[in-house]
Amino acid sequence: MVPLFVHYYLSKIEQDVQYMHRSKSTMDIFEDFSVMKASDLKYRIKEMIRIKASVGNELRLLESKRQKLQNEITLYHQKIEQIKLDMIKHQSELNKLKISVQQAQLSHLEALQHNSPDLAPPLSILASKLPNTEPTVLTTLSCSRMHGCFDYSRCALTSGFPVFLYDTEEYFPSWQIPTYLKTLVRQTINYNPHFTKNPHTACVYVLLIGESNNFNVSYLEKLPYWGGDGRNHIILNLSRKVFDLSKRLIPASITGRAIIAQSTWARSEYRFDHDIVTPPVVGPPGGETWKESPYMIPARRKYLLSFQGVVSSKNISNAEDFNSFHVRFIHQHLTLATSDEFYMDFDCFSSLSVKSKIAHEWQLCKNENERSTILKKSTFVLIPCMINENFISTPSFLIRLYESLKYGAIPLILGGNQIELPFREVIDWQKAVIFIPLARIPECHWLLRSVSDNDLLLMRKQGRMLYDKYFATGQAVLDTTLAVVRNRLLIPPLPVNDVPALSIFPKNFKPLKMDAMVPETEPEENLGPLEPPFASLKFKRNFSVIRNQNYELWNDWGDPFHLYPNLPFDPLLPSDAKFIGSEIGFRAINSGAGGAGKEFCESLGGNIQKEQFTIIMLTYEREQVLMNSLSRLYGLPYLNKVVVVWNSPTLPSTDLRWPDIAVPIEVISTRKNSLNNRFLPYENIETEAVLSVDDDAHLRHDEIIFGFRVWREQRDRVVGFPGRYHALDLNHGGWLYNSNYSCELSMVLTGAAFVHKYYLYMYTYYLPQAVRDMVDEYMNCEDIAMNFLVSHITRKPPVKVTSRWTFRCPGCPVSLSEDETHFNERHLCINFFTKVFGYTPLLNTQFRADSILFKTRIPHDKQKCFKFI
Amino acid sequence: MVPLFVHYYLSKIEQDVQYMHRSKSTMDIFEDFSVMKASDLKYRIKEMIRIKASVGNELRLLESKRQKLQNEITLYHQKIEQIKLDMIKHQSELNKLKISVQQAQLSHLEALQHNSPDLAPPLSILASKLPNTEPTVLTTLSCSRMHGCFDYSRCALTSGFPVFLYDTEEYFPSWQIPTYLKTLVRQTINYNPHFTKNPHTACVYVLLIGESNNFNVSYLEKLPYWGGDGRNHIILNLSRKVFDLSKRLIPASITGRAIIAQSTWARSEYRFDHDIVTPPVVGPPGGETWKESPYMIPARRKYLLSFQGVVSSKNISNAEDFNSFHVRFIHQHLTLATSDEFYMDFDCFSSLSVKSKIAHEWQLCKNENERSTILKKSTFVLIPCMINENFISTPSFLIRLYESLKYGAIPLILGGNQIELPFREVIDWQKAVIFIPLARIPECHWLLRSVSDNDLLLMRKQGRMLYDKYFATGQAVLDTTLAVVRNRLLIPPLPVNDVPALSIFPKNFKPLKMDAMVPETEPEENLGPLEPPFASLKFKRNFSVIRNQNYELWNDWGDPFHLYPNLPFDPLLPSDAKFIGSEIGFRAINSGAGGAGKEFCESLGGNIQKEQFTIIMLTYEREQVLMNSLSRLYGLPYLNKVVVVWNSPTLPSTDLRWPDIAVPIEVISTRKNSLNNRFLPYENIETEAVLSVDDDAHLRHDEIIFGFRVWREQRDRVVGFPGRYHALDLNHGGWLYNSNYSCELSMVLTGAAFVHKYYLYMYTYYLPQAVRDMVDEYMNCEDIAMNFLVSHITRKPPVKVTSRWTFRCPGCPVSLSEDETHFNERHLCINFFTKVFGYTPLLNTQFRADSILFKTRIPHDKQKCFKFI
Repeated sequence: MVPLFVHYYLSKIEQDVQYMHRSKSTMDIFEDFSVMKASDLKYRIKEMIRIKASVGNELRLLESKRQKLQNEITLYHQKIEQIKLDMIKHQSELNKLKISVQQAQLSHLEALQHNSPDLAPPLSILASKLPNTEPTVLTTLSCSRMHGCFDYSRCALTSGFPVFLYDTEEYFPSWQIPTYLKTLVRQTINYNPHFTKNPHTACVYVLLIGESNNFNVSYLEKLPYWGGDGRNHIILNLSRKVFDLSKRLIPASITGRAIIAQSTWARSEYRFDHDIVTPPVVGPPGGETWKESPYMIPARRKYLLSFQGVVSSKNISNAEDFNSFHVRFIHQHLTLATSDEFYMDFDCFSSLSVKSKIAHEWQLCKNENERSTILKKSTFVLIPCMINENFISTPSFLIRLYESLKYGAIPLILGGNQIELPFREVIDWQKAVIFIPLARIPECHWLLRSVSDNDLLLMRKQGRMLYDKYFATGQAVLDTTLAVVRNRLLIPPLPVNDVPALSIFPKNFKPLKMDAMVPETEPEENLGPLEPPFASLKFKRNFSVIRNQNYELWNDWGDPFHLYPNLPFDPLLPSDAKFIGSEIGFRAINSGAGGAGKEFCESLGGNIQKEQFTIIMLTYEREQVLMNSLSRLYGLPYLNKVVVVWNSPTLPSTDLRWPDIAVPIEVISTRKNSLNNRFLPYENIETEAVLSVDDDAHLRHDEIIFGFRVWREQRDRVVGFPGRYHALDLNHGGWLYNSNYSCELSMVLTGAAFVHKYYLYMYTYYLPQAVRDMVDEYMNCEDIAMNFLVSHITRKPPVKVTSRWTFRCPGCPVSLSEDETHFNERHLCINFFTKVFGYTPLLNTQFRADSILFKTRIPHDKQKCFKFI
Repeated sequence: MVPLFVHYYLSKIEQDVQYMHRSKSTMDIFEDFSVMKASDLKYRIKEMIRIKASVGNELRLLESKRQKLQNEITLYHQKIEQIKLDMIKHQSELNKLKISVQQAQLSHLEALQHNSPDLAPPLSILASKLPNTEPTVLTTLSCSRMHGCFDYSRCALTSGFPVFLYDTEEYFPSWQIPTYLKTLVRQTINYNPHFTKNPHTACVYVLLIGESNNFNVSYLEKLPYWGGDGRNHIILNLSRKVFDLSKRLIPASITGRAIIAQSTWARSEYRFDHDIVTPPVVGPPGGETWKESPYMIPARRKYLLSFQGVVSSKNISNAEDFNSFHVRFIHQHLTLATSDEFYMDFDCFSSLSVKSKIAHEWQLCKNENERSTILKKSTFVLIPCMINENFISTPSFLIRLYESLKYGAIPLILGGNQIELPFREVIDWQKAVIFIPLARIPECHWLLRSVSDNDLLLMRKQGRMLYDKYFATGQAVLDTTLAVVRNRLLIPPLPVNDVPALSIFPKNFKPLKMDAMVPETEPEENLGPLEPPFASLKFKRNFSVIRNQNYELWNDWGDPFHLYPNLPFDPLLPSDAKFIGSEIGFRAINSGAGGAGKEFCESLGGNIQKEQFTIIMLTYEREQVLMNSLSRLYGLPYLNKVVVVWNSPTLPSTDLRWPDIAVPIEVISTRKNSLNNRFLPYENIETEAVLSVDDDAHLRHDEIIFGFRVWREQRDRVVGFPGRYHALDLNHGGWLYNSNYSCELSMVLTGAAFVHKYYLYMYTYYLPQAVRDMVDEYMNCEDIAMNFLVSHITRKPPVKVTSRWTFRCPGCPVSLSEDETHFNERHLCINFFTKVFGYTPLLNTQFRADSILFKTRIPHDKQKCFKFI
């Protein structure tokens, strides 16, 4: 009833007010009051006061009622909003689910259609008996090349190429092979993964006879596995002494089918594609060799060309003629007056080091240390070929070659009609050496001047690579010799070793799970299907890489010794093949019809089959930070697994609750707190793509997915978010590490970057130990080292991907990188790594990868590739 | 006075009002009024009305005054703004000028320091006399390899390798060499740029003796330039008939030092690195050969392996044994029951084509047409090596190889202990062929199955390249044979031909200039120094490329026949070299210290020396559109020149006024209206970077400069603005051209894109003529063709650069691309080009290049890389 009552009074008052308004002006009202009777007025006023009080009460009532109603309405509105949000969320979940279901159906269909069996991983199929002494069926073929005189029955393609080493001591103690040489071979072959102690399963049998005083070739037949003709035998005639290097075996007569590996070869004795020219073993047995090689920069050194040598005239009557002819010829044409400096020493008889036994040989002057002084100052070094045409390689020639590569003087090989360079069947020497026939001596100076700085450094770098990988140590020479034989057999190398991933948790311990996930408010964006984890296919090209990319293995990547599960250099399929015949695994955008954001987010597209990535997170005693970071990964598409590398000696708290993010979180224990652990190629990393992130890095899901897509196109590069650069120190020279905002970058930090798993192997096994040692010493710079490594291998800069805000989580405990000394150490690292590599491999980049439709005006019916990036 | 007066009244009224407010309620006021005298009240009211009127007037006056003042202030503000703008503009001009001056000073300094002489471009230094009959000094070297028995004095490195062809008819008419063969060689050698008619200057002398009936080797000495021992002679024993292919010369006895090029070789006769194994000349004399090669997709064909052949048993008593042994061996091990299909025909005696004369040769079945039916259905084809070990190459073996490459069946060469494949010293056969020793037959099936689709297509594509470039035609075989010899001499090929750039303007005609430029309101942004035009250095690696990248020339890029001024694959200098020893031309950001926007805009930075770019603009009868586009280029940094390709037969209006944009505008006349003219390698394009733009494209300066910087990092790719893609036609199969907004691209249109000048040569000379013909026929698709070409060579997608708005100028006359049929034609083009290439080379890309600090929050003292992009 209240409302009606109130209404009455209100309307009455309104009328009064209206009346008042209707009168022309307020003046008129005053006039009216003045003529009114006092008693009437009083009654009227009292009435009005009563009404006022009543109305006031009513209004208060109303007001509270209104307030209440409004509150209710607000509540309802909130609820509706919440429901709408939920709806969107569910709708988006539903959409994601639908896509995931589609993907699953596709995978199922593929699985059904894919009736061709999966290839066997590299398992060994081995021989089971010792060699016969009977010649095999195939001996009708001549033994001019290895193919014709080798017993393949011992070396299945999948055998893994087992190598047996004879104990020379046991069979031929009288040969007096020096202990250091025996030790060298025995120890280094132990490091070689092909080494076997079982002669029954061996593919090849290795015999060391180097530097023997009493070697007798006729004894060879006494070897238990000689098999009548020495087939599948490699006779290593190694040496580190010039004199002993000259000794050589006469093959084919008694050594029969055995492959002879030695440094000195006469042309008539050498069987191309069967015997092997090995470099002299003058370096250390193993270990790192970068310390002795000089800095490669500048391209042009003091001397354009240098030479130190003299022709031995021993035993040959007309040696003087030869000597004078060549010296005159070279002198005359190469040391003409010019602005270029030459260092030509043809007259060092007095300072000859050990003399070669080979007649007409250009002898070495002084000792290596003294020679190196000149070599380090020489852009090119002259290496004349043997004067005695009957030889295709001689000790001093090979030592000259070895030293020139070591000290970065580019070899200019003069003559060379008959020369056979070491490992020529696999090494493209033209990339590191300039060959010039004697007749071209007059053009030589001009030719040397014509080589650009770029090419000089390319050749010097190539020479250094050949030296490091195939020449520098006894280990390198032995490994390369065996790899050459394995290469001829087209047997792939053995798979590279994964690092065992040991869980930090005790057996039977089940880490506690967090309560139901409350995912952080990530944008409600479909970024891709949520699929169960699946591994990348691996070891699919074992027998193709060593055929199709054998040249690159030996000459570009410098690692023919290991078989990798995948390479970032694998060839792409043509874009039509993925719809015709090779469909399996491809997830083309909109089934190939293409499209904008909506379709884009539903499929990976690109040039490569579908795949996932692994997140590697290094953590050290910041449990809550880690848990937060892990929680944020919930619902991240294409995520295969999270590998947490637990760098702390303390175990995780037993009451720590781990989030359930739908993919495995594997926590790996480490031997010591090392930043190098970030790049260990753990066996449980099952994808090619590895996203390395700091435990406190805060990357958004859309950024990660976009980064993953960019990486998929540039799998050989570091693709990530925080860009840095190396700046010239204008005051003191050398490099400074710089993290300022910049328009030109040269590094992308691995605190948030994708790298190929291949580079984890390379970081752990290929990178010189000195680099990893420095990372451990300073607890710093592992990211710089990775950038050095990748740019060194690819000669490309990293790729920076757009990132929306800053990376660090606000309020997280201060990390290493905030430290004051942190920067100074990073300056030191860049300069030290430059020393190790011999140059600075980092390259500059001036752009960033953004999504294609970012900040682009598009029609309303289209969707951007990503909502916010 | 007015304001004061008003103030008095106003304050008085205010007091009244305040008084009224001070009273407790309006009721009280009524009480007051009620006790007031009526006369007083009346007076008071009148007074108030008077004041009101007066105040009203005063206020109106004031209002108008205020209005006036405000207008004035606005005007002043505008003026100040204008002045500020001018100031900024001038300041920016000044800054630009300063930078330009700095650059000029640097260049000057460099010019002074750069005292090393510039290399000579490839000029010819030629021999001047005919060969002696006396042996030269160097004959003491044996003639086992070419180096030892070649007369270098006729072939300076800079000689250009002149080749003289004997007229066989003239000297040996009795030999009866078939006319078609003579015509073939005479005509094809005429296309070879090394051909000379002057025997005095020739480096090598070529004699054709193929298919002769009465060839007599003793006649050779009668050749006028034989010089006693045939040095520097190449004897071409070419043939297209199997029977004649078997004929061979016995070298070294009478042919002496001459290089013999023929198909059939006995091992004892062949001198490695001297003689040449040539493929049979069974293809057409020249022209295009893609039509006969089948589509390369799918990777796996009907038959995993096929073979058609039979062993000839003629003349050899135990031939049956050999035959049955091999057949049994192969049959037994390769055609076991399996899901894979094999096609093995060992029994085609009845259908033998021409028989080879060589005993124990695997004979060809049927004719090429019938054989090709099976080859086109085979993934691999078995090519057994010669049963007769004395041969290293035989006619039917080579024809099998030729046909397998042609029809895309990957050769599986069985045996091959002694085989010498054609042009082996330069071709890496492992990339196209699988070698397997006889002993590995049991592993063969397994091995074939292990090859991934990617590798299958890689090998098929490589085989197709080898076929196209080195095998397919008489021209290819001849050119390759000569290139192999030139390659041994390390003489670079002759420079590729530029296209003459003929001005559209008559001589002595000076086109009218526009009045003083009023540059459009481009953002007042310093984008780089304005320097006078300078050309890119060229032909700096003539003698390095054929050493350092010889492998790539022959096996990757497939073009060892031409010398290019620059390659997009030139090696980069290390980043330290550009500060130590190789500084010349480098413009590091902030002298190497790096920096954000300000420093970035002052220098080019990057990994390569400073350079400029050329704009190529194709135009057709839209003079005003063109003039507008040209005008907008005023003040564009790094612009070297604008080349306008005048596609219209009508000359430009004589009264047309051309803008003066501080760099040359060169207007080139064309033979016909062709879109292919856009990619002619005109001689007046003096930079590596070429920006191809439509005459109506509207690119902003900052976009162009950013695009240029991105291109500088990816010189081997198409780097540009309008992205497109090829989409699968889900209804009818094949490809559709698609220009919708998309998150995945595969083409960047050359209406606004940077390409390396190298690709202009490739488009004009390397691309099959059929592609250019289609472009002419439809007046369309030249941009698609360029994207096909570049992706074919690099196996990389193009790079899309951010672009702010749309490209077309609003209000410009409608261009070709708006046409209705335009799209349909472009669908057809993609599908036709796919046929020509044998596959679709286009690859997908999912990101865009943006400037590094775009949309990034940076500190106030830093500047972005670009203001708007």
